[in-house]
Amino acid sequence: MLPVHNIPAAKPILQVTVSHPRRADSVGIVQRQLAHFDEPLRLRGGGSLDSFTLAYETYGTLNTDRSNAILICHALSGDAHVAGYHTDDPDEKPGWWDAAVGPGKLIDTDRFFVICSNVIGGCQGSTGPSSPAPDGKPYALRFPVITIADMVQAQRCLIDHLGIQKLLAVTGGSMGGMQALQWAVDMPDRVASVLFLASTARSSAQHIAFNETGRQAIYADPNWNNGDYYSGPAPHGGLAVARMMAHITYMSEISLERKFGRNLQTRDSLAYTFSEPEFAVESYLAYQGQKFVERFDANSYLYITKAIDYFDIGTDYGSLQAALARTQCSFLVVSFSSDWLYPAEQSQELVKALTKLGREVEYHHIEAPFGHDSFLVEVDRMAHTVKSFLDRL
Amino acid sequence: MLPVHNIPAAKPILQVTVSHPRRADSVGIVQRQLAHFDEPLRLRGGGSLDSFTLAYETYGTLNTDRSNAILICHALSGDAHVAGYHTDDPDEKPGWWDAAVGPGKLIDTDRFFVICSNVIGGCQGSTGPSSPAPDGKPYALRFPVITIADMVQAQRCLIDHLGIQKLLAVTGGSMGGMQALQWAVDMPDRVASVLFLASTARSSAQHIAFNETGRQAIYADPNWNNGDYYSGPAPHGGLAVARMMAHITYMSEISLERKFGRNLQTRDSLAYTFSEPEFAVESYLAYQGQKFVERFDANSYLYITKAIDYFDIGTDYGSLQAALARTQCSFLVVSFSSDWLYPAEQSQELVKALTKLGREVEYHHIEAPFGHDSFLVEVDRMAHTVKSFLDRL
Repeated sequence: MLPVHNIPAAKPILQVTVSHPRRADSVGIVQRQLAHFDEPLRLRGGGSLDSFTLAYETYGTLNTDRSNAILICHALSGDAHVAGYHTDDPDEKPGWWDAAVGPGKLIDTDRFFVICSNVIGGCQGSTGPSSPAPDGKPYALRFPVITIADMVQAQRCLIDHLGIQKLLAVTGGSMGGMQALQWAVDMPDRVASVLFLASTARSSAQHIAFNETGRQAIYADPNWNNGDYYSGPAPHGGLAVARMMAHITYMSEISLERKFGRNLQTRDSLAYTFSEPEFAVESYLAYQGQKFVERFDANSYLYITKAIDYFDIGTDYGSLQAALARTQCSFLVVSFSSDWLYPAEQSQELVKALTKLGREVEYHHIEAPFGHDSFLVEVDRMAHTVKSFLDRL
Repeated sequence: MLPVHNIPAAKPILQVTVSHPRRADSVGIVQRQLAHFDEPLRLRGGGSLDSFTLAYETYGTLNTDRSNAILICHALSGDAHVAGYHTDDPDEKPGWWDAAVGPGKLIDTDRFFVICSNVIGGCQGSTGPSSPAPDGKPYALRFPVITIADMVQAQRCLIDHLGIQKLLAVTGGSMGGMQALQWAVDMPDRVASVLFLASTARSSAQHIAFNETGRQAIYADPNWNNGDYYSGPAPHGGLAVARMMAHITYMSEISLERKFGRNLQTRDSLAYTFSEPEFAVESYLAYQGQKFVERFDANSYLYITKAIDYFDIGTDYGSLQAALARTQCSFLVVSFSSDWLYPAEQSQELVKALTKLGREVEYHHIEAPFGHDSFLVEVDRMAHTVKSFLDRL
C-alpha cells in the first residue's frame, strides 16, 4: 500500500501538480480536473442525464495495484477542493478539509491516493442546475431531481474512469457520510471501509424542516423567478437567509456563546436601531450569508437540500436492516457531543444495526463544543482514531 | 385572598362578561378591552411615545383589598387573549393559555383576578408600528425601538389604572418570563412573586442569531419596503419564513420526529418534485407560516424580536447580581428538559444567582419532550407546582 510514484501513463488524469507548497504539510498547489461522461445517468427520481461532467481533485499517488484510493465525499456546501491551493496568492484559503488531508495528516497523502468530486447537482464544476442543458440554456428547474444514491452513481463513473476497482475507504462528514454509507450499500464490492463522520442513516423531521425553511427563503426572493434567474440578478437575499439559518445549525449554542456572546459589533453600547447590526453574532451571520451567495448557486442549494431530505438508506431496500445487510466493509463511525443537527443517537442507531448484523464497526463519540462543524474543526482529536483505523485495513 | 364578587362600581373596566361557557372549565366569553394613556412613555432606547393604548383582558374578580391580581405576560407572538372565547362560534379556538387559566385551573380564576395585556410594539390592539402615529399614518419604522423594560413600564400604567398597588404574581413563559423578571427588578415593591417559565435572564448569542435571521427574511421580502407597506401588500413571504424557522426552535427534535418523522403528506411514495410539499413536516410548517401572516404584523415581529435580543436583566444595573439584588419577591422557576431555545442551564444560572442573594426560590425542571413549547403544552405537569406555590403566597 506504499505509494508508488510512477503514475500510469494511460491515466494522465491522475497527475497532480504539486508546487510551491505554502506550508510544509500542505499538498501544495492543485488543479481542479474535469471528467466528462457520455453514458446516461438514470436517476432514482425517474429523470436522467444523457451526459454529465464531474469536477474533481486528487492528492497523492495511486499505487500500482490501485488499492490505496480514498474517496472523500463533501457536505452540502462543499466542493471538490478538499486540500491545498489553486494559486500562488498568499491570501488564498486552502481547501475545505486541508487540516485533515495532506502529507502526514489524518488522511495521509504520502500513503493514500485521495479523490474528491463535486456532487452532481452542485455548482463548482459538476453538472447541476446552472449548467447548460442540451439546448444550451441553463437547466434551472429543468434539472432532474437528484438523490444521494444518484450522486454516488455519478462518483462510481469517475472511480471507473480512474481505473479503481475497490476503494480502500469512502469517507465524509454530514452529507458526505450519507454518500459514504450509500456507496457501501449500493456497491458493496467496491468499498473496503466507510468512515462515517457526524452523519445519519436517515434525515430527521427537524432536518427536513430546516431545509424546507431555507428553500422557502429562496422561493420568496423576487429574483428567484421559479429558478429561471441566470440571465438576471440571482436570488441572493433568500439564499443568504437560508445560509444564515443553516449556519446556526452547524454551530452549537455554546460555541456561539463562547465566540460572540452578547458582544457588540462596533459600539460600546447598544444603538437601539434597525439600520446596522448591533451584536457581533449578527455581523458574523451577515458575513457568512454574503460570502455564501458569492460562491453558491441558489438552485443547487434547492436540489442538494432535497437530496438530503430524501436520504433514508433503508428506502430502496425495504428497511435499514435489509440495506445494511448488503454491506461487506468495515465501518468507523464518529459522532460529536454538541452536534444537534446530526445528534449522536442517530450515529448510535446505525452502529447498533451494523453490530447486530455482525459487521466490523468501531464507534467513537467525541466530546466537542463546536456543534456539527466539529467534524471540520476537531481534526486533531479524530487523528489517532482515523489513522489507526486506516492502518488496520 | 378569596374572591369577592362585588366589583367596585368606579372601575367598570374590571368587569368581565362571562356567558355561555363553551366548556365547564372555561372562563367563557370574554371581551378585549382598551386602555388609553395620555402620559408619555419614555423608552430605554432613547425614544418615547406621547400617548399609547394597551389592549388587555381580565378574568376572575378583583377582591376588595385588590390583593389577588396575577399579571400574565405573553410571549413573542402572543396577545392579551389568554383564555376563553371572543364569540359564540363553536369553531373558535380559545385563548393561547386556556388550558392553564380558568375556574379551578392552574391559575384559578375563581380565586385570582388575572390580567394580560398585549405588549407595546405588538399588533393585537396595543400601540405598535402598525398603529397610527400622530400624523395619522402608521408609524412603521418611525415607531421607537422598544425593550422588555419598556413593555413592563407600559403594563405598570395599566396596573395603576386598574387600581392595583401590588401584584400577587407576575408570570409568563419565554418572553413573558423576561417581562416577569423585569417587573421584579424594576418595580420590586409592586410584585409579590414571579413565576418564570421556560425563559432566560439574558438572550444568548444563538437566540439573537435566530432572531436576526428571521428579521433578514423580512428585510429580503420585496414588499417590506423598509417597513412602509401598510398601503400595499405586506411582506408575507419573508414573515412566513421567519415564523417557520422560529417554529422549529419552539419544538424539539424528538417532538418533530414523533409528530411527523418522515411521513409523506399526500402520497404513498416520494414524488421527487419541487412543486408540492412532500413530507408532512413541510406542509405543517407551511401551514404555520400561513396562519401566522394572517394575524401578525411583520414590523411588530421586527420590534419584538429586537426587544428579546436586547434583554439582559443585568444591563441597566451593572450586573446580574446587582439587578437581582433589587428584587423583594419569591420566585418559582420552571425549565423543560427538551427546551433548546431557552436551555435549562439558563434558568439554573438565574436560580443560583437568586439563591446566593438569599431570595426564596423554588426551581422545577420538568422532563418533557415538547421543546420550548412545553410551557404551553405541559400544563398538567406544572399544575401541582404552580398551585402549591400560589397557595403559599
